Amino acid sequence: MRRIIFSAMLICISFSSHAQKVLGFTDGNAATQLKWESVFDSLVAAPNLDTYMKFLSSRPHHVGSVQGKANAEYMVGLMNKWGWDARIEEFQVLFPTPKTRLLELQGAKPFRAKLEEPALKEDPTTGQKSEQLPSYNAFSADGDVTSELVFVNRGVPADYEELDRRGISVKGKIVLAKYGGSWRGIKPKVAAEHGAIGCLIYSDPADDGYGEGDVYPKGAFRPGDGVQRGSVMDMPVYPGDPLTPMVGADKNAKRLDRSEATTIMKIPVLPISYNDALPLLQSLEGPVAPASWRGGLPITYHIGPSLSKVHLQLAFNWDIKPLYDVIGVMKGSEYPDEWVIRGNHHDGWVNGASDPLSGMVAELEEARVIGEMAKQGFRPKRTLVYCAWDGEEPSLLGSTEWVEEHQEELNRKAVAYINSDGNERGFIGAEGSHTLEPFFNEITSLVKDPQTGVTIKERRYARTIMDADRSSRQKMYGNSNIKLSALGAGSDYSPFLQYLGISSMNLGFGGEGEGGDYHSIYDSYEHFKRFKDPGYAYGAALSKTAGRVMLRLSNADIIPMDFTSFSSTVNDYASEVKTLADQMRADAEMDRKIMKDNLYGLAADPTKKISAIPYKGDVPFLDFSPLDNALAALRSKADEYKLYQGKAMQLEPAKRIQLNSILYKLERSLTSPEGLPRRKWYRHQIYAPGFYTGYGVKTLPMIREGIEERKWVEAQTGIARVSESIRAYTAKLDEAVSLLK
Amino acid sequence: MRRIIFSAMLICISFSSHAQKVLGFTDGNAATQLKWESVFDSLVAAPNLDTYMKFLSSRPHHVGSVQGKANAEYMVGLMNKWGWDARIEEFQVLFPTPKTRLLELQGAKPFRAKLEEPALKEDPTTGQKSEQLPSYNAFSADGDVTSELVFVNRGVPADYEELDRRGISVKGKIVLAKYGGSWRGIKPKVAAEHGAIGCLIYSDPADDGYGEGDVYPKGAFRPGDGVQRGSVMDMPVYPGDPLTPMVGADKNAKRLDRSEATTIMKIPVLPISYNDALPLLQSLEGPVAPASWRGGLPITYHIGPSLSKVHLQLAFNWDIKPLYDVIGVMKGSEYPDEWVIRGNHHDGWVNGASDPLSGMVAELEEARVIGEMAKQGFRPKRTLVYCAWDGEEPSLLGSTEWVEEHQEELNRKAVAYINSDGNERGFIGAEGSHTLEPFFNEITSLVKDPQTGVTIKERRYARTIMDADRSSRQKMYGNSNIKLSALGAGSDYSPFLQYLGISSMNLGFGGEGEGGDYHSIYDSYEHFKRFKDPGYAYGAALSKTAGRVMLRLSNADIIPMDFTSFSSTVNDYASEVKTLADQMRADAEMDRKIMKDNLYGLAADPTKKISAIPYKGDVPFLDFSPLDNALAALRSKADEYKLYQGKAMQLEPAKRIQLNSILYKLERSLTSPEGLPRRKWYRHQIYAPGFYTGYGVKTLPMIREGIEERKWVEAQTGIARVSESIRAYTAKLDEAVSLLK
Repeated sequence: MRRIIFSAMLICISFSSHAQKVLGFTDGNAATQLKWESVFDSLVAAPNLDTYMKFLSSRPHHVGSVQGKANAEYMVGLMNKWGWDARIEEFQVLFPTPKTRLLELQGAKPFRAKLEEPALKEDPTTGQKSEQLPSYNAFSADGDVTSELVFVNRGVPADYEELDRRGISVKGKIVLAKYGGSWRGIKPKVAAEHGAIGCLIYSDPADDGYGEGDVYPKGAFRPGDGVQRGSVMDMPVYPGDPLTPMVGADKNAKRLDRSEATTIMKIPVLPISYNDALPLLQSLEGPVAPASWRGGLPITYHIGPSLSKVHLQLAFNWDIKPLYDVIGVMKGSEYPDEWVIRGNHHDGWVNGASDPLSGMVAELEEARVIGEMAKQGFRPKRTLVYCAWDGEEPSLLGSTEWVEEHQEELNRKAVAYINSDGNERGFIGAEGSHTLEPFFNEITSLVKDPQTGVTIKERRYARTIMDADRSSRQKMYGNSNIKLSALGAGSDYSPFLQYLGISSMNLGFGGEGEGGDYHSIYDSYEHFKRFKDPGYAYGAALSKTAGRVMLRLSNADIIPMDFTSFSSTVNDYASEVKTLADQMRADAEMDRKIMKDNLYGLAADPTKKISAIPYKGDVPFLDFSPLDNALAALRSKADEYKLYQGKAMQLEPAKRIQLNSILYKLERSLTSPEGLPRRKWYRHQIYAPGFYTGYGVKTLPMIREGIEERKWVEAQTGIARVSESIRAYTAKLDEAVSLLK
Repeated sequence: MRRIIFSAMLICISFSSHAQKVLGFTDGNAATQLKWESVFDSLVAAPNLDTYMKFLSSRPHHVGSVQGKANAEYMVGLMNKWGWDARIEEFQVLFPTPKTRLLELQGAKPFRAKLEEPALKEDPTTGQKSEQLPSYNAFSADGDVTSELVFVNRGVPADYEELDRRGISVKGKIVLAKYGGSWRGIKPKVAAEHGAIGCLIYSDPADDGYGEGDVYPKGAFRPGDGVQRGSVMDMPVYPGDPLTPMVGADKNAKRLDRSEATTIMKIPVLPISYNDALPLLQSLEGPVAPASWRGGLPITYHIGPSLSKVHLQLAFNWDIKPLYDVIGVMKGSEYPDEWVIRGNHHDGWVNGASDPLSGMVAELEEARVIGEMAKQGFRPKRTLVYCAWDGEEPSLLGSTEWVEEHQEELNRKAVAYINSDGNERGFIGAEGSHTLEPFFNEITSLVKDPQTGVTIKERRYARTIMDADRSSRQKMYGNSNIKLSALGAGSDYSPFLQYLGISSMNLGFGGEGEGGDYHSIYDSYEHFKRFKDPGYAYGAALSKTAGRVMLRLSNADIIPMDFTSFSSTVNDYASEVKTLADQMRADAEMDRKIMKDNLYGLAADPTKKISAIPYKGDVPFLDFSPLDNALAALRSKADEYKLYQGKAMQLEPAKRIQLNSILYKLERSLTSPEGLPRRKWYRHQIYAPGFYTGYGVKTLPMIREGIEERKWVEAQTGIARVSESIRAYTAKLDEAVSLLK
């Protein structure tokens, strides 16, 4: 502790005695910026977050709800009062809500699922029954199906390989999958690909319930009747309104017929609690599930099929509902046509205190403080756009439609998009475009952690070292740089980054909140106050972190992007995909030997009747040279930019504008108009959500997924396409370098 | 499959066309030996094993039971009928049985534990209530204690570190530990060292119950009321009768007073079922248990202490009971004073079909077949001693007392001891003295696996490759050598190997049986027949494997020992202890940095109040050079023996006898009369059960445990002592080499 406090003091001393360097700022402007930042810090007040939270979480506020609209109007009102130019922007989107939900087990031990989360006297908003959306998966198909049940573990492709090895088919069956291991929408998609006619998804108590800790209301974790709602739209194909891909769903938009919308799930899907899942799991016959499939219920998990049939009946109101995005603008004084955009969604599945409001209230406080600063004479040089998205939960509806609606303008003007989506006690987490990594690290070394008093960077470093295994510790000790994670999908940055190529970040604190409230009626004001961020100390820390990111990006003389970080990160991804191919090749060679020597057959227990994993074929050598060449060129250009970067501050204003315009549009060259295979909407060639993982990112997606799915031609084409993007990027970077030389 | 059958055919062809080489045999004698082995194979008949099993498992047959004595007499009768000189050798040992067993939870939700395994109509012997020993831990202390309960996970030293970090003491408390993670006797021993006044041990269903598979009688696994009986005597100090350490417990033996016996547990200990454990676990308050501590019951596991008190009352009959060891002898024709000894225990905790009878019936069949062969003219050159031990379960009583009683004679005469202790479907498993590794591998390449038709060596190799992770597979592919595991404790080889230094092996098939019957009334004929080895195909395979080991050791011209295997294995152990010290040193250095930078404090959740793992101090550099020098000398002597080995077959008979006498006594030089620190009985310097693991072996125990327990002087002294043993061994080996030169 002593040493760290001491070095923090040294920084303070250097503040006062020398001009402090700030990435992207001239020395003179750096001083002004730092002054305003300290004003910003001093104005952030945690109790305000509680005030916003109380109102916003007071009633259920899903898409189309009374409170959802009231929340949007409340925020517009606040922002206008604070000095912003705020308004609601409305879209019309498909948003199904349940009409019929019936799940029953027939046969000798009939059982009808409760499908109901009970109200708790300890938590008043859980009793707002008339306004709550019942538990369901949005964009499930309508359906009335009756069949035997099969347990499919997480319901990802590898699980179906295990079923195949045991000769168990889900064709014509209803599957029961555990939440976790993939984004939920993957489970019914893969089930339908294998011929299942219905899908149930339950929260196993080992992952999300008493296995984690005491259940609500005694503790924070999911109680026996708790259910995780959520969308199962096929978002890895495209997010947003299923009826208006690639165009904003305004009143006049040309809409697909519902039958043409490829992202609506093909089979009925219903999420259930572990109490409702128990009798279903007990009904299963057939082999005992593999050890890694078993959960925390007090039974032996079998795969099935069940002897008794399960009846699942679902029907939805397929209504078009209004979306209320809140868009607040503070015009830039010098570069009004360069936009720095901040967003968090405001819709929740029910009362949504943690998800999304804990991030929303931090963003609101940033807006209030910036408004207050404006009253004191502050003016951002670039335009600040503060947004509160509606309809993120059903599938990034509000952000996607807004981005699609304004794509042409955003393409020209958007400098960066900074997202948050929930926040709790703990450690700063950051994902995003790697050009922003040094810039972001600089900021984290200035924000204090509320619990320990050291910077959030130092605390995150401490956690990283303590979490590392012994051998990684040796390697990482002393290196406190926060490596940004890559962005997949899962929140509103997706259309900005993956559709338009706008440099983006997603920020939030986490790791010390507790909860099994996710997407349930128990994600409430009461629960949040007890278990997530009592006193909003970390909400305030998020305001200070994200607020600083916004203020610096809007005021920087030169947009503080770093290309060596980006180049070395993409280089790492290239190494990963090469290693992946090499390992798959070595594995295939070994599998062939094993097959030739019948080692599986000799080792197997003949009474178990589990066949070998089928041989998947040889792995060819791919030609990675175009990628290697493109990366070498990028690396040397990035080094060159670094070398000449210092000269940027001396550029005459017009050239500086020209340079900035090149810099913030650079990420656009990583997009390709063809998009990714089978999903044209995803244009970014470096980052995408996995086609079979959902939220989980796949970097260099076309190459990586081509290899993983053994589509060798696609992988080779991917190498060409990624290389082309990188070459285009390098050429643009060269324009920047030429300006500096 | 094709390839393997083809190569097996090649072997058959070479059998008939050339003289087959057999390790330790002259070419002429090899042919005779192989002829007798094929007679042996042809006479082994699986149905006989069922006949023995039916009788032996018909009623409970623990120490002092009516059936225990009847079983001994039955076996003596059979063996004498088969042509052996068999008799019962009796000892008198302390064997406590329960008089009072009471366990109750007091307070608001009182509960009295059932402590009773219900009889099942599907399994007739489970109803033999009047003859069953109730569930208990033998050599628990008497006691009547009432206190709060604390959950201590597996109850090993590392678990108490976790309790310390949370400020939870077990002083004056009753602890509840899960079975597993250590030998059961370690749990009360460590609990008592930490001041606990009572100990409960339960079988968690995640490890041993419905988490593994369907419970008995539907499936093989432990039902809710099933209890694992077992000894908690402090066997890592010395096994056998607690009143007669190091001397045979015959009628006239000088006995300690019970109060002087250091191996009797100091606190009352009781094993319980998971049904009985559930209300106790539910009574616990305090912090939620760490994730790795949690089990398969449908609750949140807390550490405690409980609010309500637990009352545990135990009293035992501390009786002296007779032991009935069965000793059958077939005198050697050429070397009657060289004994090759075979054993399995015959006592069970209840009906003990799997443990121990499945191994016992295989041994009996070997005896029958050898007897039959004797009638056809076969005569072993060395004396065969076939034993059935009583009292293994309470703590290797029968074998230890017999070894202690006959130690002087065994020291002179024992060539090797071959143990088994249970058997089931699956793969050959072998632990033992590494001088026997090539000899044993030769045998496994001649015994057929009943399920696949390949040799048991090939099947084991297939399993090893299939179980390996991808990177180990690359390394291991093509190397089918079966590496013997080191012997710890846990069965009757312990006194032979660790007290006297007699080369030993432990053999058995396993890996495909299923069960949660261990040490319960459900370890029955019925259960065995359904789940362990239906038809006794693997019982017969064990007879063929162990029988061949016995026949070859008794007839070999030169005892087939290999010293390069031994030398390279001990070399590996030396590398392990060096790496252990190096890693502990690197860890300590890192821990010191973490402490200096307060990284734990910065990373910790301040609301959790878990203190850092205390710094354990620096790790000095030890002087391994004496060990390195001793091992280098051994290696070169082992190579020299290998070089001259071929000449052994030409030695004149007197010299051959002299050489064999050196060879089979070589392992004695690895023992040291001082024994190990704090446990003089354990004299072997290469293999010992862990002081804090129980069954689990610690190789180079004095060095390894010295390092692990940070007793640096002891570790350094250990290096000297092990080096001395290895030098003595090398000197003896040099005598053998001199005879050959």
